[in-house]
Parts: sequence; structure tokens; C-alpha cells
Amino acid sequence: MNTPRIKALLFDVFGTVVDWRASVIAEGVALGSAKGWCVDWETFADRWRLEGYIQSMVKVNAGEWPWMNVDQLHRQKLDDLLAELKLSLSDAEAEHFNQVWHRLLPFADSRAGLEMLRERYVVCTLSNGNIALLTNMAKRAGLRWDCILSAEIFRKYKPDGSVYRGAAEMLGLKPSETMLVASHTSDLLGARAAGLATAFVGRPQQWGVGGPLEPRPDTPFDVYATDFVNLATKLEAMAEPLF
Amino acid sequence: MNTPRIKALLFDVFGTVVDWRASVIAEGVALGSAKGWCVDWETFADRWRLEGYIQSMVKVNAGEWPWMNVDQLHRQKLDDLLAELKLSLSDAEAEHFNQVWHRLLPFADSRAGLEMLRERYVVCTLSNGNIALLTNMAKRAGLRWDCILSAEIFRKYKPDGSVYRGAAEMLGLKPSETMLVASHTSDLLGARAAGLATAFVGRPQQWGVGGPLEPRPDTPFDVYATDFVNLATKLEAMAEPLF
Repeated sequence: MNTPRIKALLFDVFGTVVDWRASVIAEGVALGSAKGWCVDWETFADRWRLEGYIQSMVKVNAGEWPWMNVDQLHRQKLDDLLAELKLSLSDAEAEHFNQVWHRLLPFADSRAGLEMLRERYVVCTLSNGNIALLTNMAKRAGLRWDCILSAEIFRKYKPDGSVYRGAAEMLGLKPSETMLVASHTSDLLGARAAGLATAFVGRPQQWGVGGPLEPRPDTPFDVYATDFVNLATKLEAMAEPLF
Repeated sequence: MNTPRIKALLFDVFGTVVDWRASVIAEGVALGSAKGWCVDWETFADRWRLEGYIQSMVKVNAGEWPWMNVDQLHRQKLDDLLAELKLSLSDAEAEHFNQVWHRLLPFADSRAGLEMLRERYVVCTLSNGNIALLTNMAKRAGLRWDCILSAEIFRKYKPDGSVYRGAAEMLGLKPSETMLVASHTSDLLGARAAGLATAFVGRPQQWGVGGPLEPRPDTPFDVYATDFVNLATKLEAMAEPLF
């Protein structure tokens, strides 16, 4: 990696910038308490994420399902889970709960780290989450992005290579002038295959205790950081300003 | 118009947020001085804008030309103008001058007005300018957008209705929940036909002395404002907060 050539940092969001699991569990607990439900919200959150998001996107990318954005994928799985658990919500209540994914809370270092990184780089999302979700989240959480890019624009989900290449092109850059920042090995391997530089940020808490080990062993990423502030410090010595 | 229903403001950019004409002329004058050229930069700027942007987009929308983004359209016209005027630049110099459109300066009220409007609304670009251009401009000029949307995403240029409808959909909103803010009658009429609310902001200086009269008479827009601060004041009394 030729670090001074990096002009834009593209951020995975769910699990890298925001703590999806803690946020979904917290809102689930509050909802269950208000409704008098007895629900295992850790399992609920994990299944919503794994079955409603990760497994669904594979089907969309394979052409088994038509294009649906992440709000639609989340809502479909939410309705399934509520039915399976025999829990009843009005359409407006379900829609509000589905939008918990617009209200995810950032990790403690995310805001400050992004501000540091903004000084030297164009900082953008590159999430599978849809534009509305990312825009509402950023506004609510005070995350300052230079640009919000989403798989929705390209109608393919990461780790399809067209998403990474398309994002670089839309920023007027070569893939090698951009770097994906993510906490997931599969996302970073997709970016690397598309020609982007890669930075792994450890977020071991995102799947709770006993989650998958990240990064997978022998992963050839360019930078390894413990959080965004640490990433800014590591990149700073090598970087040239863009403006 | 039911103003409390408006959740997002979509901004035209060239001539509405930034003063393209003054910015292009200023950089042209500096370039011409460095090169020892004698060029009428007012005419140069107007022709670059009118022939390289406005007339070219009509050809793209009509299918006469393949999709080209605004950086490409600008560069094509720049090369034509330089050849016509027998002016010589290296490729790197021409590329740098072409990027003057990334360096346009905001009108005096733009930054402050956007900050006021951000408190109540999602504020987004909806420009024919490409994403890279809008991102670089915002970062350089300190314009804080919640989201950067561009005709480039939809591969059609305004005033094609698909651009306005697509932007609303990408924000998870109905067209009637969004408002286009622009200084050009044709843009606002396109938005209105697509179901958006409309706000005209007067920028009489954008074509220099003797430019077209805006708004055209008998235009049925929802709000008329003299600048963005005035727009914020006019909308404030009627609005409900989004968050």
C-alpha cells in the first residue's frame, strides 16, 4: 500500500461505526417491557441481523430475490420473527421498531475518530444500509460524513466487487486511492479483491460473547487498528493532505 | 403545500448554493494572467456553462449522447473552447482548470442558512453535478449536507422527473414530503410536476448583468425567498422538527 495516495476512506457502518447489537437489544427490551412480552432480545437481535440481513443479501446478490433495500429486508424478517414468536404490533409500531436500524448508536470513539480522519481524507460511508437509513442515522448520531454512499446506488450488496469499484469511481478516484475501513474480514477481502486498500478495526463486542473471531487468521490487510482514533494516529504519519 | 409535512430540502447547487460565474471568472483571470493570455473571461464562463453544461445535458437526456457525468461534459467543452481560442494547456493544467467547478464559492448566506435549515430538515444536494464534484466542493467550502444526491445516481439530468422522484424515494420519503430549493424556474417546474414542494431563491447575480429574469412570471411556487436565511425564517413558523 502506498499510503500517501489514499484520498478517501470508505466506512462499513453496521458493527464498524455503530453498535447494532446493543442498540437493537436496548430498544427491544424497552418495547418488550411496555408490551409485557417475555422475549430473549439477544437472540432476537442476532437472528434479525443474521437471517434478515446477511442471509437475505446473499439471495438478492444471487438473483434469487429481486432488489430490496435494507429497510425492506429488515421489515420482512421482523414480520417473520413477530409471527413466529406470536407477538402482535400495529403496522405503525412495527415500522417504528424496524427503524431502530436508523437509530443505532455509535461506538464511543466513532465521532471523534471521524473528525480526526476528516482533516486528511474524504470520509464516506460504504454500507449495505440504504441511503435513508444512513442519512437519518448520521443526523441523529452526529456522525459527520463528507458523502453517504450505499450499495443501494449500485443495486448489489457488498462484498460484490461492483460496489467497491463503483464507490471509488463516483468519488472520481481509482480504487487504489481509496481505503475500506471495516471490522469484518469478508468485507475487507471483497474490497481488497477490487483493488482498494484495507484497514481492519477491531469491534469484538459486536456479536456479544462467543462471536466469530475477527480478523480471520492470515488476513493481509494494510492497517490494523483498535478503534478510529487509533486508526487516525496510525495513518497520520504517512498521509498527505487532500486539500 | 402542507409545510409541516416537509421533511427534507433538496438543493440545486450551481447558481443556487454557489456562485459558479464569479468563481469561474476569478480562476480564469488568474490563469490568463499567469499565461499572458488576453481572454474575455465573462464570455468564456457563460459559454462553458451554457454550451458545456446546459445544452450538453439536453443531448444526454434525449439519448443523442451516451451518459457522461458533468466533469466529463465540462472537460469536453473546455477542450473545445481552448482549441477555438488557440490557447494551449497541458493535460494536467486543463484537468486542474476543469476542476474549478469543484472549487466554486458559496454565496454569502449559504453556509449560515444551511446550518439554520439543518436544525429542522434533512438538507441534501440534488444537483446535476456529479458526486465527486459535490463532495469536494462541500468539503472545501464548509457546506454541511446531510446527504449528497446527484442526477449521476439516476443517470438522467434534471428536469427529468425521474431524478426528483428517485431522490425522494432514496430518502424514504414521498415526493410531497420533500421540497426543491432552486433559483431556476425550469428546475422548480420539473420538481413541481414530480410532486415536490418548491422554494424559489433569488440569485439575480448568477448570469451577470442582463441575465434571464427569474422567476419567470406567473410561476406557482410554494415559497419565494431572497436567500437561505430568509428561507429558514419563512419556513420556521410553519415547520415541525423531524427529530
